[in-house]
Amino acid sequence: MIFAAAQLNPTVGALAMNAAAIAHAAKGARVGSARLLITPELSLCGYPPLDLLQHSGFVEDCYTQLQTLADKEARDGLAILAGFPDREITPTGRRLYNSVALLDEGRIVATVRKQLLPNYDVFNEKRYFTPGGKSAPLVLDGRKLGVHICEDGWNDDQFWQERLYDSDPVAELAASGAEMLINISASPWAVGRDIFRTQMFQHSCRRYRLPGVLLNQVGGNDDLIFDGSSVVIGHDGEIQEEFAQFERDARVFELLDGHERSSTDTIHEYHLSETGKLKKALELGLADYVTKCGFKDVVVGLSGGIDSAVVVAIAASALGAENVRAIGMPSGFSSKESVEDAKTLCRNLGVRLDLLPINGIFDGYLTALQPLFKGKPFDVAEENLQARIRGMLLMAVSNKFGTLVLATGNKSELAVGYSTLYGDMCGGLEVIGDVLKTNVYELAREYNANGEIIPRSTIEKPPSAELRPNQLDTDSLPPYDVLDPILHAYIEQRLSKRQIIEQGYEPALVTRILNMVDRAEYKRRQAPPVLRVTTRAFGAGRLMPLAQRYTHP
Amino acid sequence: MIFAAAQLNPTVGALAMNAAAIAHAAKGARVGSARLLITPELSLCGYPPLDLLQHSGFVEDCYTQLQTLADKEARDGLAILAGFPDREITPTGRRLYNSVALLDEGRIVATVRKQLLPNYDVFNEKRYFTPGGKSAPLVLDGRKLGVHICEDGWNDDQFWQERLYDSDPVAELAASGAEMLINISASPWAVGRDIFRTQMFQHSCRRYRLPGVLLNQVGGNDDLIFDGSSVVIGHDGEIQEEFAQFERDARVFELLDGHERSSTDTIHEYHLSETGKLKKALELGLADYVTKCGFKDVVVGLSGGIDSAVVVAIAASALGAENVRAIGMPSGFSSKESVEDAKTLCRNLGVRLDLLPINGIFDGYLTALQPLFKGKPFDVAEENLQARIRGMLLMAVSNKFGTLVLATGNKSELAVGYSTLYGDMCGGLEVIGDVLKTNVYELAREYNANGEIIPRSTIEKPPSAELRPNQLDTDSLPPYDVLDPILHAYIEQRLSKRQIIEQGYEPALVTRILNMVDRAEYKRRQAPPVLRVTTRAFGAGRLMPLAQRYTHP
Repeated sequence: MIFAAAQLNPTVGALAMNAAAIAHAAKGARVGSARLLITPELSLCGYPPLDLLQHSGFVEDCYTQLQTLADKEARDGLAILAGFPDREITPTGRRLYNSVALLDEGRIVATVRKQLLPNYDVFNEKRYFTPGGKSAPLVLDGRKLGVHICEDGWNDDQFWQERLYDSDPVAELAASGAEMLINISASPWAVGRDIFRTQMFQHSCRRYRLPGVLLNQVGGNDDLIFDGSSVVIGHDGEIQEEFAQFERDARVFELLDGHERSSTDTIHEYHLSETGKLKKALELGLADYVTKCGFKDVVVGLSGGIDSAVVVAIAASALGAENVRAIGMPSGFSSKESVEDAKTLCRNLGVRLDLLPINGIFDGYLTALQPLFKGKPFDVAEENLQARIRGMLLMAVSNKFGTLVLATGNKSELAVGYSTLYGDMCGGLEVIGDVLKTNVYELAREYNANGEIIPRSTIEKPPSAELRPNQLDTDSLPPYDVLDPILHAYIEQRLSKRQIIEQGYEPALVTRILNMVDRAEYKRRQAPPVLRVTTRAFGAGRLMPLAQRYTHP
Repeated sequence: MIFAAAQLNPTVGALAMNAAAIAHAAKGARVGSARLLITPELSLCGYPPLDLLQHSGFVEDCYTQLQTLADKEARDGLAILAGFPDREITPTGRRLYNSVALLDEGRIVATVRKQLLPNYDVFNEKRYFTPGGKSAPLVLDGRKLGVHICEDGWNDDQFWQERLYDSDPVAELAASGAEMLINISASPWAVGRDIFRTQMFQHSCRRYRLPGVLLNQVGGNDDLIFDGSSVVIGHDGEIQEEFAQFERDARVFELLDGHERSSTDTIHEYHLSETGKLKKALELGLADYVTKCGFKDVVVGLSGGIDSAVVVAIAASALGAENVRAIGMPSGFSSKESVEDAKTLCRNLGVRLDLLPINGIFDGYLTALQPLFKGKPFDVAEENLQARIRGMLLMAVSNKFGTLVLATGNKSELAVGYSTLYGDMCGGLEVIGDVLKTNVYELAREYNANGEIIPRSTIEKPPSAELRPNQLDTDSLPPYDVLDPILHAYIEQRLSKRQIIEQGYEPALVTRILNMVDRAEYKRRQAPPVLRVTTRAFGAGRLMPLAQRYTHP
């Protein structure tokens, strides 16, 4: 049996557009003489559809599209696996399933329901779906296809030390005679996740001596970045075929028990470095957020510091330099070097730079506030005002020209609250909000790999917010190579204060950092969506109360 | 058996403080010769603890507090029911249960686990907890107590037309000989919810001919407002005792099968009007958010319009006028009447008002933006700038004086995006963000019930944002008495476009409104927490994708 698999990039809710993409893939599958076209999890509505699933009409609309797709495209010997939300009316109430339909001969022939529903981190599938029952193969032309959906492949008792669920759908499929494993996924990327996912699937193929394909969605949907990285695996666990990473792709291949043949002769090794993947992930996440929201171009406030420089470089690479504009907004505290660095960067990239000094506006605020502020010392109020004036100018440009503002805060700053709400946190997307400062430097070096794009002085100068004379980040924070590991331990590893101190950090420092993180939660609650590139990003994956008083013992 | 029940107001995560409140309630219970003190769901950590539950150490800290509580307070004939997160290490992994412990004779005697875990709207208990097994009574002094937790009482097959779960813990308790029902809740308020909850519990008591107590948490925790409204019900379903609404309360009573005796002779009827409850709810939510976040006072931008006037009235009532300051920030487009109305309101309330004209700052922005904007017409960029200047001034006051900024947007505005991100949406809390404009008027009349607080002209003049000459809300929006029912149908009832049109609204108008709501999602994503007073508020209860393209057919 010849298979085709389309690593699609759906837009959430764009049912007709997503169905058209499946129809387009069907054309390619027919050309390749495929019997079955495989598409990703919930390919008709895109993943994650969130509460669209709960609006009257949405699920019915998906079903209508599914039937149209069956009628028009599952014809002339081509069957299609398409993901969709499947509603069932039971005597006690309505139930919704995360399902995949087998479309053949113009109709819906069978469906498979997801059994294991992820409900941790950014996932909340139990909000919407009822778990499916025991897994059994789909039969097509007498062949038993071990079709299962994403998380159903993530509970192998040999692979996992600690399991989240009691049952193992893959084991059930193997036990009931599946001849191959077909995992239909929408599995978002985080550093290391692509390799881990492939290894896990390789393990299952090897364990049950079955060939398989893991097909994953690609593209950015809000904060989530799906990497694709689909793979065809032999029954011996060897990689037969690797789809592109962070790009659409489609392949035609066979899944033979015992002797696999790939449609291509060359087997690619993963060739991107981890920082290279991070770069591609952020560019994809940014480009898709911009275009799927209906924007064409972006504007970034460029300080001359490393964070905004990296964001401009990401944007220029993702959208083309002509779709990026940078605005430098120097104050009396901005160094000449910073302005020069901003100019050099934009020249290197071919990005338009405008300079809008903020002194006049800042003075206007001080005058207006004089009746209330007179006699009070310069403090965080005046510092934040400068950051906020810059945010307001960017938003004015956004409103006037219809460009999307990108925020430039990194994860270290967002973590400890070293960022100004309604200031540098303004924007439609927080591009590097899940990248620790030390990793921002790695990204900068990656962009400079083929020649200097980001000026060396931007990379080498000590970080400063330049909101008061001679200010340095280290006035308020420990050096980033001390701060970042503590943040990683607290946020991503969720270690307790005691456990972090046991790693050798100074107790008073750990206490101070953890308190800063907790107290800055109110800022993050109002932050733009943060592109998620680790296993614990700020946003939907980390739901912390605001008015809370937990004291770490 | 004499019972005591404490309608507590815990702060999330404040374990020692919450334990102290339980200890304090234990003193009262002893005075009343009670055998058992009942406290609300998760009373040790407060509800909802969210991802605090997933930080290493937190669950252990709760357990330590529980043991201390048992040791110190569950003595001398007083037993205590205390809610806590209960961890179990199983062969396959760790499991956490939403539990209540029976503390007696200095130790943890037994625990009850919540079986039905709400995972809809604002609830995400399946993110944290594993469902408990079949329910059975707790035994104390030979009496069988039908202790169950919140949602476990919400699945009666006679009461509900459509059920969310297959099992019914109350039925299980009754079948296994429970002599009374003890429902331990953290059930947030929304309009009508208190009466509904009581009726549901009355139904269960009547159905099984068992007396019972439903004890509910009180207080504001972030966006959620818990109303208390605990009740003691006879086996005939009659209300024996009503606890205070929106206030702490504690009672001592008996639960006798057949013949109930109340500790008080008078039985209160619910005496608050629905708008009166809304007023109390918002005041409680506001006061608790402010104090639990560690603030003392608040600042509000006062335009002279109805929304900000109502927010100032709520704040003054909740915190005392001396803890509220208002700032009027007139521009060239502000009417004289608006400034006068602001002054009158503040005089009526005894709230300090400062006037900070924004013209100078506005001109500063226009000058700075001149290089980019010259030749472009005045549009939303300039309108938003004014709103944002006001937001920045309020934030400057907040930074300088440590006061919390309250945002003043109503639900109608937030719904259609008739609000400025980083402008009037600035603040720590969106007080009336779940109140439709037509209900804001009702609130205004409620505050004027005992004499004019909010000036009549504020209530009677046509709503205007005053961001351009002679602007009226009806320039951009239909009248609120048309808009609000459409919003209610779409957001709260989640009806489809077709269903709303079938109610008799103009199809083009419905299409326009629904598109406005969908497109404004990015603003709401960055809004402050919205006090929730309906069954579908913006925030955690409505998770909509941003980069989505669903077209309502």
